[in-house]
Amino acid sequence: MPRYEQLADDMEAAVRRGVFAAGERVPSVRRASVQHGVSIKTVVHAYALLESRGVIESRPQSGFFVKARPVQRDGPDSREDLVARAAQAARGTKPRRAGAAKVPMGSVPNAVPAPVDVSRLVLSTLRSIVAQDAVPLGSPYPDPALFPWRRINQYANAIARRHASWNLIDDLPPGNPELIRQIARRYAENGADVDPEEIVITVGATEAINLSLQAVAKPGDTVAVESPTYYAMLHAIERLGMRAIEVSTHPDTGIDLDALERVLARKKVAACMVMPNFQNPLGFRMPEAHMKRLVALAEAHDLPVIENDVYQELYFGPTRPSSLKQFDTRGLVLHCASFSKSLSASYRIGWALPGRYRAQVEKLKFLNTLTTPSVPQVALADYLRHDGYDRHLRRLRRFYRQQARLMRAMIERFFPAGTRTSDPQGGYVLWVELPPRVDSMRLYRAALAQGITIGPGYMFSMRNDFHHYIRLNYSYPWTEQTEAALKTLGELAAKMA
Amino acid sequence: MPRYEQLADDMEAAVRRGVFAAGERVPSVRRASVQHGVSIKTVVHAYALLESRGVIESRPQSGFFVKARPVQRDGPDSREDLVARAAQAARGTKPRRAGAAKVPMGSVPNAVPAPVDVSRLVLSTLRSIVAQDAVPLGSPYPDPALFPWRRINQYANAIARRHASWNLIDDLPPGNPELIRQIARRYAENGADVDPEEIVITVGATEAINLSLQAVAKPGDTVAVESPTYYAMLHAIERLGMRAIEVSTHPDTGIDLDALERVLARKKVAACMVMPNFQNPLGFRMPEAHMKRLVALAEAHDLPVIENDVYQELYFGPTRPSSLKQFDTRGLVLHCASFSKSLSASYRIGWALPGRYRAQVEKLKFLNTLTTPSVPQVALADYLRHDGYDRHLRRLRRFYRQQARLMRAMIERFFPAGTRTSDPQGGYVLWVELPPRVDSMRLYRAALAQGITIGPGYMFSMRNDFHHYIRLNYSYPWTEQTEAALKTLGELAAKMA
Repeated sequence: MPRYEQLADDMEAAVRRGVFAAGERVPSVRRASVQHGVSIKTVVHAYALLESRGVIESRPQSGFFVKARPVQRDGPDSREDLVARAAQAARGTKPRRAGAAKVPMGSVPNAVPAPVDVSRLVLSTLRSIVAQDAVPLGSPYPDPALFPWRRINQYANAIARRHASWNLIDDLPPGNPELIRQIARRYAENGADVDPEEIVITVGATEAINLSLQAVAKPGDTVAVESPTYYAMLHAIERLGMRAIEVSTHPDTGIDLDALERVLARKKVAACMVMPNFQNPLGFRMPEAHMKRLVALAEAHDLPVIENDVYQELYFGPTRPSSLKQFDTRGLVLHCASFSKSLSASYRIGWALPGRYRAQVEKLKFLNTLTTPSVPQVALADYLRHDGYDRHLRRLRRFYRQQARLMRAMIERFFPAGTRTSDPQGGYVLWVELPPRVDSMRLYRAALAQGITIGPGYMFSMRNDFHHYIRLNYSYPWTEQTEAALKTLGELAAKMA
Repeated sequence: MPRYEQLADDMEAAVRRGVFAAGERVPSVRRASVQHGVSIKTVVHAYALLESRGVIESRPQSGFFVKARPVQRDGPDSREDLVARAAQAARGTKPRRAGAAKVPMGSVPNAVPAPVDVSRLVLSTLRSIVAQDAVPLGSPYPDPALFPWRRINQYANAIARRHASWNLIDDLPPGNPELIRQIARRYAENGADVDPEEIVITVGATEAINLSLQAVAKPGDTVAVESPTYYAMLHAIERLGMRAIEVSTHPDTGIDLDALERVLARKKVAACMVMPNFQNPLGFRMPEAHMKRLVALAEAHDLPVIENDVYQELYFGPTRPSSLKQFDTRGLVLHCASFSKSLSASYRIGWALPGRYRAQVEKLKFLNTLTTPSVPQVALADYLRHDGYDRHLRRLRRFYRQQARLMRAMIERFFPAGTRTSDPQGGYVLWVELPPRVDSMRLYRAALAQGITIGPGYMFSMRNDFHHYIRLNYSYPWTEQTEAALKTLGELAAKMA
């Protein structure tokens, strides 16, 4: 790619990201040449290209400016119209096929531990979402527009003004004491008895999971995971040079405890990683009886269990789900969670409740990233203390539940016979089983060419069990574009089936 | 400790941290009892204790309020007075003893690789600084009050307002493109040719160093480090279950290249970790000829070199120092740096230039913490683009250089005969060799009892070579308290000698 084209791409990306706002002046040709270390000619070329793309415009005697663009996201009114229309369309669809009502099948246990390398696929999928500016059905993240970012930003700004300079040393691991207290209070209010002293604040749940795994297992060890599993679990295993053993997982009740018991009887397993609430991608809520049995199994085998509970607040039922942690009497459960799915993704604040492994996790946190940035910690603590988190969550849950129904109905309407969908009990992702002849990577590439992303099943397992499954994100408000994208996906799948 | 006292301690810490500002109302007894899950009686007890400590006051009919306290930090005028007085006092001191002018001795190479566990000592030292609110001579961090936090906060706030909700996916590794560009531009302006494509943004230099080490070595491998070395290097080795081999390091020129060559000839070494510019704790600036020879040695042995260059901007001489990276033609140098020592510590923004290991480092970043928070990245990019970073740095360098002189003079004045100090060429720490009979851990404990912290030599090596050395931080503006603390330290050391 010629240098000028690269520069133009970079600048266009910067404009899209809002580094230069609409109407703002971009650096002069001379300045840009110095800034980017390229010749004047290269900048002139790049700017001409950006003009022809409609990104910037030249104004005589004043330079180049970012062109105003029509707002792409629908306003609240038209969005509601659309949702109403889509819901009506969904209701008008033919009665549910028997097959469509069924949930995707559970998987077969994999008896052979395998070293892991799924991260490349995941990272390139995520990148394509950004690069193509595509309909983000493949995104693992919730629509941040639904979060109370304005309030949180206000708290952050007030703190920054009040505290001025922040001393790094004030928030050494385990983290900001006030945030820790607020997190413990929330658990308490929800009937879970959590000792604030146990909490360690981390950079998102990602770090919490990584540190937890490192605290209980070492390179070369075997770790039991669900199948399909959330790929962050596989990443943690990959990062530490461990081996994963996949255990059959039921779409309604979670990891198959008989299968897990057989694995434990046969193999030395250093840890087990599960997501009992609204697992990504399956969306189940593990029944309490299963939770208790899993904890009992862990105790019988002295097996540390890493519980990823990032969706704990996003339940669709009338009550907040339990967690493995609540049934753990021997400190074997390392409970990991975050605010990224329910309050603020970009702040990257998570935590671990590492049970008897607390000291190791805290020390590893210190070694891994020293501290978690302070202002985001205090801003979230202030929000939790003074603001309407519960009100926000009620709204979010209602919205996700409605979106889940809508997307299931749309899939039933547009997708080929033989398609089956999960019935999520919380969270914001849907797991879709396509006819076996549809390869999810082929579908992924075909969809991407049309500006649509999906999460191919390959990301969720090291086996080939889920080659015809995809994960879809329903957190983004329904638009005509979403509907058109699902229609296109359905047509592409039908052609491949 | 009884529950009410613990609660009082926690609340006092919260007040000190500014969670409750002076004059602000603290939660009512009833509310606090619910919040902290303790009885009304416990809260009443705790509040009474806080009243007697002078932290809060009760106002009839209205509850408890945080008491206004006299501002503890001196205003700019009195501070200047103090510095002037201290400088004068220093000039009045007896002429330098021959011994005092000498720099501390280099160490003996350690031929036996040892597994590492220094982090516990370091973490507890850091904690004691917070808990005791002591004179922070033992702190590894620069005084944040000297940073342009007001400007940076303004940028952060403007971004938060402009962008509102931030999509996590926008700043996937390698990181925010604009920040990457600004970092590359700075290198370019300083004559270092850096490809922006090589940069990976991390959570501080800590993460950059961790990921770099993980990219080039595996558990059980041996890694060569300086002796004394900055303990973050030892932490990285400890975190990954590797072994460290300490190489004699000269206080003026850095790692002993002959000694390193002998180690390489004898042992399989997976990587070498050094800090060529203003090493913490020694403060030397490695001569360019040494840098070139070190890179040549690395190339001859195909040895990855992790270069910690966090003090690159804090030079006292007329020119910015070179870095190993500039002499590296084969991509063997993994250069790590951050803004934490020169612009904003609490933002936790660092980066790596990982040479030929870039793909691995980027992937490990993704696995380790997913992304680095966005707003801090963009705020620093905006600051670099629009603000007076160079002006700020010039001021900071001048100030640190003056402080270094002042502290050396004070030590000469107050410390026992046989004390020798380093002559830092940059940065903000001083390395002090005490008479051999002074044990730095004993001194550390005795000093802490007097409200003074120091960095005991044990933190910088797994050997016993530095038991009579301490590291002192001179980034904090000179006050009477600093002077009194140094005097006390000198007296304690004299007693032990």
